[in-house]
Amino acid sequence: ITTKLPAVGTTIFTVMSTLAAEKNAVNLGQGFPDFHCDPKLLEDVAAAMAAGHNQYPPMPGIPALRDAIAAKIEALYGRSYSAATEITVTAGATQAIITAILAIVRPGDEVIVLEPCYDSYVPNIDLAGGKVVRVPLVPGTFRPDFDKIAAALTPKTRAIIINTPHNPSATVWTEAEMRQLEDLLAPTDVFVISDEVYEHMVFDGARHESVARFPGLAARSFIVSSFGKTYHVTGWKVGFVAAPAPLMAEFRKVHQFNVFTVNTPMQHALAQYMVSPQPYLELPAFYQRKRDLFAAGLAEKTRFKLLRSEGSYFQCVDISAVSDLSEAEFCLWLTREIGVAAIPLSAFYGDGFDQRVVRFCFAKKDETLLAALDRLAKL
Amino acid sequence: ITTKLPAVGTTIFTVMSTLAAEKNAVNLGQGFPDFHCDPKLLEDVAAAMAAGHNQYPPMPGIPALRDAIAAKIEALYGRSYSAATEITVTAGATQAIITAILAIVRPGDEVIVLEPCYDSYVPNIDLAGGKVVRVPLVPGTFRPDFDKIAAALTPKTRAIIINTPHNPSATVWTEAEMRQLEDLLAPTDVFVISDEVYEHMVFDGARHESVARFPGLAARSFIVSSFGKTYHVTGWKVGFVAAPAPLMAEFRKVHQFNVFTVNTPMQHALAQYMVSPQPYLELPAFYQRKRDLFAAGLAEKTRFKLLRSEGSYFQCVDISAVSDLSEAEFCLWLTREIGVAAIPLSAFYGDGFDQRVVRFCFAKKDETLLAALDRLAKL
Ligand SMILES: CSCCC(=O)C(=O)O
Ligand SMILES: CSCCC(=O)C(=O)O
Repeated sequence: ITTKLPAVGTTIFTVMSTLAAEKNAVNLGQGFPDFHCDPKLLEDVAAAMAAGHNQYPPMPGIPALRDAIAAKIEALYGRSYSAATEITVTAGATQAIITAILAIVRPGDEVIVLEPCYDSYVPNIDLAGGKVVRVPLVPGTFRPDFDKIAAALTPKTRAIIINTPHNPSATVWTEAEMRQLEDLLAPTDVFVISDEVYEHMVFDGARHESVARFPGLAARSFIVSSFGKTYHVTGWKVGFVAAPAPLMAEFRKVHQFNVFTVNTPMQHALAQYMVSPQPYLELPAFYQRKRDLFAAGLAEKTRFKLLRSEGSYFQCVDISAVSDLSEAEFCLWLTREIGVAAIPLSAFYGDGFDQRVVRFCFAKKDETLLAALDRLAKL
Repeated sequence: ITTKLPAVGTTIFTVMSTLAAEKNAVNLGQGFPDFHCDPKLLEDVAAAMAAGHNQYPPMPGIPALRDAIAAKIEALYGRSYSAATEITVTAGATQAIITAILAIVRPGDEVIVLEPCYDSYVPNIDLAGGKVVRVPLVPGTFRPDFDKIAAALTPKTRAIIINTPHNPSATVWTEAEMRQLEDLLAPTDVFVISDEVYEHMVFDGARHESVARFPGLAARSFIVSSFGKTYHVTGWKVGFVAAPAPLMAEFRKVHQFNVFTVNTPMQHALAQYMVSPQPYLELPAFYQRKRDLFAAGLAEKTRFKLLRSEGSYFQCVDISAVSDLSEAEFCLWLTREIGVAAIPLSAFYGDGFDQRVVRFCFAKKDETLLAALDRLAKL
């Protein structure tokens, strides 16, 4: 069988997590917490199941959860979305992104991605028959380069995918950068797919600049987020999309024929749990402490050069002073020989661009981070 | 925004379930049970969550569940699939089907669907850029018409989608029919997507003829099934696909960038629950009794002409003696005025073909079926 996706292998996250398990390495590769979620959330699932909420929910999600999502977006970002027509619950953020792409990208349409980027975007665009237009973030700083983005815009540009807080670089777009994007797109019909799955993880007092805050962007955007990241339940595979009604109508046409709908008991539990903003309001401080613990250990014990982690749950480091291996070989070696799994940034580039930087995930128990630091101290 | 799916509205299942809820009608439309699943299954989910199984599972599904699926297929249908490379857990059967289609159908490829068919197939093929080739099942009996299928095969035929037990007609393909398909496809490279979500619901001693039983078919097939249908938990959105390794490799390339993976605690619970074959072995008798209860009531109390229900959890009836309305108008009227929701078969045809037949779902508590019969007795 000739493949439709010749460039696609197994995702780096699967490769590294599998290897980490085999080698009994501390897994700081794939982005997921190794600690438990709030037990209350589990009780809410059990209660929902016991109440009989085990059959198909409404296609766009249960009303209570959509209401809670709309209320949160309004409270945090000041834009009101209609729970009835502008919010849809998805089977995680990955499914939200492919669905948005399939809904709007037609064969031959161009879609701009800012590299490095999450590894699903490009194959998603390929599957829609779109043309991927890769624009690099500024090397070293990973800031958006608006001259390059402007140069990439053509009459065939259908959409641009942005991501803040950014995976893998851990940068967070500023208000000024968002305004620049807003201005740049103002004269165009370009849609925005805004991957905001780390929306609640921004550090040092910075704030998350959701596209929802910028009317000129919000009107053309699909906002994608993830309950898995926010509530420490990546395995539940529940996320959501917010978009203006005409965009959401197209999204739902595809959604209903992709997954049709999303796990009912988890939706009930999340709706219940979202009543309090406390859990996500506490996240920045929670993860900033972990970042600081891990970064201080790396600075003290290793010769890695630390990049600034402004948000997300990732810490990137430059490996030049430690190794001559390529990023990918270094990560394999680190997992096998040192017992710590990391992700090479080259996995986030179409051409495998190697800038000697790898990504660690610090969404881990303190003891896990300390165990990793002990092993990394050999370097 | 110009739509990519101009023919697509909201699925008939959503339309009818929403209307049924509004009108307080007995909902025999959308196919889902209104009774509870085995409480043991809920305990297994709670136990999995408490044990901390809330983060990303392996991309193709947890090994224990894939093992259990492979063991079941071997026990029932005599074909061995590798749990490692030939089974993938999906976010329900709908997601399995779109993923198989996106994995193999290239722009311009032809895909044969046998009408009437489930309403996701055609938009799924459209999204892949494929050309839908509609072949009708024999009017009245809904048996496959192999002359017509043979006539539809061309060098551009990439796949055929089959479905037994059949939704909406409730027919079950015979061994002879499966062999005819096997022989017909023998000289071709055509893939088969075999929707077998009602595999455990076959009546009157008939047996389910999975493509897994037919080597010439199995070698070219994606078998799709659903835990939601089998275990009365349609809202959990967990299903699976079995396919030979080269096909599964392509499937997983798309799967990992569609949903990436599927709800972890539900996977653990299902793996646990599958240890006993009892629940699915009891299903034919369980549903046959409901079919008989409902069919006897319809025969006694209404002038509907009953079609034979050989499998699935649907009973179709001819409405000619009762009404002059179109199927679709009849279903709206029945929901609004009589208080019973049904699904028009025209919703399963691209051209809205109206043969005066509507579908009832009898996966309901006896009291629900009796309440519906009381209301239908007015006809
Ligand atoms: C969906 S698996 C990858 C998780 C993740 O977001 C990451 O590690 O970048
Ligand atoms: C996924 S909603 C439809 C359920 C179903 O299979 C049917 O009613 O035909």
